[in-house]
Amino acid sequence: MRRLKVVLVVADGLGDRPVPELGMRTPLELVDFSPVADLLSRSALGLWDPIRPGVRPGSDTAHLALFGIDPTNNYPGRGPFEAIGAGAVLNPGDVAFRGNFATVSDGAVILDRRAGRRIPEAKELVEYLNRNVGEIEGVRVEIYHATEHRVAVVFRGPGLSDAVSDTDPHAEGVRISESRPLADDEAARKTARLVNSFTERVTRLLGECPLNSRRVERGEPPANAILLRGAGKMVKYPRFSERGELSVERAAAVSATALVKGVCALLGFEVLTPEGATGGVDSDLMSKARAAVELYRRDYDLVYVHIKGTDAASHDGKPHAKVEMIERTLRALSHIVDNVDLGEVVVAFLGDHATPVTVRDHTSDPVPVMVYAPGILTDGSSRLTERDARKGSLGRLRNVELFGTLMDYAGRVEKFGA
Amino acid sequence: MRRLKVVLVVADGLGDRPVPELGMRTPLELVDFSPVADLLSRSALGLWDPIRPGVRPGSDTAHLALFGIDPTNNYPGRGPFEAIGAGAVLNPGDVAFRGNFATVSDGAVILDRRAGRRIPEAKELVEYLNRNVGEIEGVRVEIYHATEHRVAVVFRGPGLSDAVSDTDPHAEGVRISESRPLADDEAARKTARLVNSFTERVTRLLGECPLNSRRVERGEPPANAILLRGAGKMVKYPRFSERGELSVERAAAVSATALVKGVCALLGFEVLTPEGATGGVDSDLMSKARAAVELYRRDYDLVYVHIKGTDAASHDGKPHAKVEMIERTLRALSHIVDNVDLGEVVVAFLGDHATPVTVRDHTSDPVPVMVYAPGILTDGSSRLTERDARKGSLGRLRNVELFGTLMDYAGRVEKFGA
Repeated sequence: MRRLKVVLVVADGLGDRPVPELGMRTPLELVDFSPVADLLSRSALGLWDPIRPGVRPGSDTAHLALFGIDPTNNYPGRGPFEAIGAGAVLNPGDVAFRGNFATVSDGAVILDRRAGRRIPEAKELVEYLNRNVGEIEGVRVEIYHATEHRVAVVFRGPGLSDAVSDTDPHAEGVRISESRPLADDEAARKTARLVNSFTERVTRLLGECPLNSRRVERGEPPANAILLRGAGKMVKYPRFSERGELSVERAAAVSATALVKGVCALLGFEVLTPEGATGGVDSDLMSKARAAVELYRRDYDLVYVHIKGTDAASHDGKPHAKVEMIERTLRALSHIVDNVDLGEVVVAFLGDHATPVTVRDHTSDPVPVMVYAPGILTDGSSRLTERDARKGSLGRLRNVELFGTLMDYAGRVEKFGA
Repeated sequence: MRRLKVVLVVADGLGDRPVPELGMRTPLELVDFSPVADLLSRSALGLWDPIRPGVRPGSDTAHLALFGIDPTNNYPGRGPFEAIGAGAVLNPGDVAFRGNFATVSDGAVILDRRAGRRIPEAKELVEYLNRNVGEIEGVRVEIYHATEHRVAVVFRGPGLSDAVSDTDPHAEGVRISESRPLADDEAARKTARLVNSFTERVTRLLGECPLNSRRVERGEPPANAILLRGAGKMVKYPRFSERGELSVERAAAVSATALVKGVCALLGFEVLTPEGATGGVDSDLMSKARAAVELYRRDYDLVYVHIKGTDAASHDGKPHAKVEMIERTLRALSHIVDNVDLGEVVVAFLGDHATPVTVRDHTSDPVPVMVYAPGILTDGSSRLTERDARKGSLGRLRNVELFGTLMDYAGRVEKFGA
């Protein structure tokens, strides 16, 4: 089979519901599609359910499925991916937790599970802990600040297990829970012991920390404990070149978002954040487009471009900002399309999950998808609204089905059977 | 996310095929939809395959999927659910069989696997056995009459197994089979022993029973044995409040059908059968609608209304009766819709499986579905026929996907991932 290159452009959070502020139209229904109208008319449209209908995807699980790894079988839980999103580089076997700064009394009774939620000194507290916690029983412990009171905690070393209970009792007015092994093996017992030593050490260090004395002086609850939940043990994902069902050797991703960059790195992408790309609505999308064209011209089989600003506008509940970000994304897509050989490439444009501006969070709504490939059965639409996508000839694809479809149009899927 | 209430109305057996008696239209194509035309025009339509395309659902498996429990992984077989449909309340660990009254010779050779099928005294025979069988090896045995010659037999107690073979040889002219353990463990050996003692005791008791002497006098085959098949061990289903992926605390079901009531009770619904509700075509549907409105006004997150008459008309092969039952159901739905706040509720109307009147049994045809939610992408149809549903923007949802979709519109699904 003739092998084509693949260029995949994701507008994060694309796909929406009717918005009162837009006269019950969706942001996509207000978008000017003219920069890519010709491409759209030569494409097939459809819908994609990143996990399956009715399941709200995270950015991590959606990206695993987008690249052909079924997250319903290959997802170690949020702990490791929270850490990746906060900038950690994890190795298979590392055990990571989601955590909260909390306020506890002298007797370790939880007074506030989120230590007031607003903790401007959270980053400094994390640095202080990372300087002082160090190793426990020869296992390295790393803390990463996520947002507000949220952290991720990584235990690195051999012989660890994620079969341990939370120290977060998910309630206030009770003591921090002791972590217990949930499996009858040495790894679980060792990890529970480490977690309990961690809790003790962190509570002591935070209790002594001058940053907390100042919070108390200002009448704010001290961030004097970390509650852990959702242990997950990092799994090993196959690199593209290790996936027998695919013929993809080299892949490159253009993104400025830590979680997406982390997932791409795990799957074997070379990851690039070009000058001016920010992961926000102020990102220089043409810089990303130019980077993608350059990667396409080098010997990458798959070039992925991730645009985060559409999701940021959605989480902020700003429909007009979302329309503008989509239009800027389409101009970037248009620049890419103008600089590739449409006889030799598969181009897809889609969302990684829906983030309706009225909901301001990820939902399970299927996302609109456009697939261009030489000789594909076209729908002849020059727009890609949710309603156009519903009528599209690709139908409604689930989970890894979209990736397989794209790779097959590119002649890169092995036959299953004789 | 903002949480909405959910009201779910099922017309059992909704969904049909063209009927010669109706000029090759389906019952839904003759229905007057005007009581809910406005609601329909503000809804999305689609199709639902309760299990997956090509699998004929039972009422039990369809209802498990309808409420988000995948029956392909969590179904213990028909034995326990036949017992539930006959009024049993099962506990996890109970082992239940489907059974037939049969006619055997003195030497336990099967002469008629169904004892003539017509057994007006079946209920009395079951009561007689329940008074006299009692316990075997400390395990309580309960027999429930289902329909005609059919019974369900429940063994209650710890240490039982469903890995035992049938005593029903599925043939006549041969002896009742001995039940054998199908696993090499004490539970299977004990259960097979119990089943064989049961067979022996029941055959002796039925042979002595005056009801059978009278059948013989009238020239009817005596119901002098019970053949068992399809052992199933009751599993434990999570209550709504135990399901981490959902935020549903309280659910209520309105139904007059034993099997549906039993499934709902297993899943943690509070189950209500209002005055006048019969589970037949003579049921007082407005009484059900009023009960649903009252439950909606109390603090239930999910209110389920089950209407059986549509299925009864289908099994009887009566298309006009089915049209009338659907119209009565729509008037009940309209009463509910008039008494809820459409800004704060998700409303769905659908079948639990298709029962075409020409087939007079459940088929795997997908069922029409209507979903209303504030701000949903609408289809603008004022009818819900099979053909309208096929064009609907929800597409074709399978198994637990519909429940997830409804719960996500209600803001009650946890995110899978970070």
